[in-house]
Amino acid sequence: MAGRAYLDWNATAPMRAAARAATVVALDAGNPSSVHAEGRAARAVVERARAEVAAAVGATPRQIVFTSGATEANALALSPGLELCDGHAHRDGLAVSAIEHPSVLRGHRFGTLPVETVAVDCDGVAQPATVAEALARLVARGAVRPLVSVMLANNETGVIQPVAAIASAVHAAGGLLHVDAVQALGRIPLDFRGLGADLMTVSSHKIGGPKGAGALVVGPRVAHIASPLIGGGGQEQGRRAGTENVPAIAGFGAAAAEAVAELAVAADRMLGLRRHLAERLLAAAPDALELGAAVPRLPNTVAVSLKGLSAETSVIAFDLSGVAISAGSACSSGKVAASHVVEAMGHPGLAGSTLRFSIGSTTTEADLDRAIGVWRTVVGALANRQGKAA
Amino acid sequence: MAGRAYLDWNATAPMRAAARAATVVALDAGNPSSVHAEGRAARAVVERARAEVAAAVGATPRQIVFTSGATEANALALSPGLELCDGHAHRDGLAVSAIEHPSVLRGHRFGTLPVETVAVDCDGVAQPATVAEALARLVARGAVRPLVSVMLANNETGVIQPVAAIASAVHAAGGLLHVDAVQALGRIPLDFRGLGADLMTVSSHKIGGPKGAGALVVGPRVAHIASPLIGGGGQEQGRRAGTENVPAIAGFGAAAAEAVAELAVAADRMLGLRRHLAERLLAAAPDALELGAAVPRLPNTVAVSLKGLSAETSVIAFDLSGVAISAGSACSSGKVAASHVVEAMGHPGLAGSTLRFSIGSTTTEADLDRAIGVWRTVVGALANRQGKAA
Repeated sequence: MAGRAYLDWNATAPMRAAARAATVVALDAGNPSSVHAEGRAARAVVERARAEVAAAVGATPRQIVFTSGATEANALALSPGLELCDGHAHRDGLAVSAIEHPSVLRGHRFGTLPVETVAVDCDGVAQPATVAEALARLVARGAVRPLVSVMLANNETGVIQPVAAIASAVHAAGGLLHVDAVQALGRIPLDFRGLGADLMTVSSHKIGGPKGAGALVVGPRVAHIASPLIGGGGQEQGRRAGTENVPAIAGFGAAAAEAVAELAVAADRMLGLRRHLAERLLAAAPDALELGAAVPRLPNTVAVSLKGLSAETSVIAFDLSGVAISAGSACSSGKVAASHVVEAMGHPGLAGSTLRFSIGSTTTEADLDRAIGVWRTVVGALANRQGKAA
Repeated sequence: MAGRAYLDWNATAPMRAAARAATVVALDAGNPSSVHAEGRAARAVVERARAEVAAAVGATPRQIVFTSGATEANALALSPGLELCDGHAHRDGLAVSAIEHPSVLRGHRFGTLPVETVAVDCDGVAQPATVAEALARLVARGAVRPLVSVMLANNETGVIQPVAAIASAVHAAGGLLHVDAVQALGRIPLDFRGLGADLMTVSSHKIGGPKGAGALVVGPRVAHIASPLIGGGGQEQGRRAGTENVPAIAGFGAAAAEAVAELAVAADRMLGLRRHLAERLLAAAPDALELGAAVPRLPNTVAVSLKGLSAETSVIAFDLSGVAISAGSACSSGKVAASHVVEAMGHPGLAGSTLRFSIGSTTTEADLDRAIGVWRTVVGALANRQGKAA
């Protein structure tokens, strides 16, 4: 859309040119399961992308299971049907942080088995000690090898979680750790081996690849996924049946390679823009709260809460002024819902009064200044109404 | 690949120009769940495609649930967690025909619940009476409202199943019918209402749309899918969470519209080509068996069995001569497996000796003549070897 400022990269990122080119070429690919030349060429496209994604996340190609996206990868990971490399079979419980994406909170496959919630502190951080407490509650309820899911960076606030320390706590309790790294890839260095997680989810369309591809990274402690989500054919080592989405996978690989190659420069640039934006948002509304400002965050995300502000109305006002932002997750079918993340951070009164600005590699200062202009209008109108009401 | 004859359309069809154009444009779409203009524009793309697919299959747009492909749609459908419109809840058993795709045979979600197999006759047809017998066996084992899955047209032989009559038998037993119509769409007239099925699966990449999209059509007797395969967000009426694959869905819609618009002309043309091919294949090898020749079949598929022929070696010989064909389903990760369909038709000795030729709207007589030339060489070599052995 000409003349608009798109500041909703955490919902979906604009396509990278390299990803677009790789996707378009692969539209003509054959079926990777076919034996003939057309099939083998398609297989080569998939395996090249697998190597690119593996390199981008610090994993080996065999550890990558391509899925239709992160929601599917989360559902695949969060199943009681995992078997460990030490011969132990299924775990008996799940603990998830309170700020996980809905695809984790409601998309896991634990049914009526015990599911514990890990609270976050006022900065939006799931502390390792709190994770350990949730694990202890699971064990008290009879769980033996529980699974824990904590995201690497929150989609609404950008707050980065202490995943390496959490991994140590989980492993000390004999459990497994799944990490939703969807918002982290391409924005902070991501190293699957270094994190210590056992399972990790990444997504294509959040890093400038096409929609329709994601991956679950499966570490060496997981010997077997006994309950694949989608079964039948033998694709993806039997972990995900169905003809591979070759074009989306090709684009995902290209996007991952480019995102990681440009990360250092892009992150510095985004951080400068984020600070430019946050300073001016807060200057125009001194009572506003920048969520997670005291802790490490993604360089691309600013979430601001302001008492009395209607996030729903504000998102529409920004939109009408040519600025695309969000009130939180975009994953609830076009509705602006109160943020469970803001509630979990101890601000239930601000859950419907929080705006998220998320930027990317092609965002300009002019885009931000346009958003700042709308913000001044919105908070000015709010102050006027509150003044009249007082 | 220049100068090759691609005769493996049942594995994946070449992209249609209209589908390619719709897909490429939609690569730049936003997140359909976003409230802002970019999100609403993406939503409009998805809903336009939904209307196109619905019109192509004789359903209403609200009956279409987009998935990542047919394998996922089959897994979504074949779950004990369906609730009927009459208030009755879950069914208690599943019956599948012996010639279903692996995504049905092994991808269903019935776990340890009773699963009955419906045998086919020597023509590869699942007769309604045989379906009724399988239902009776399920009921004898305690099933109350069983689910039945029978494909509309077989992927290996093209044989068309008597689905309307099967639907009557299933409904008379209080059950539900799922139909895998992946190979039928775009090749024979397809009318969801007229078929009488309750659930139906279709795929994008088999009709010249991009890989990465499929749909489950959900009829009025299914009130609720209590166990969505992929949960979390509220997309697709809560029946399939995750950001929609907007480009693939857009291409699917365009492909479905075009495939149905050209169907009458294309089917006539394909039928002429199929007969041209089959006559010459059989003339060169009088002992060869054209599978399903006595019953209604798709106009695009010829499966030929010849005693002593190695399908695996033959597929490679065709490939080296520039002709892409298949030994059956392409869904088993690059391996040439013995055909469970040929076995089910009563020819276990021919299960590894069957070749599938499948054509489409851009196939030419020259493509077929090239295949016929290779066939003559292959069967000549076989006759020589058999002559020497005799």
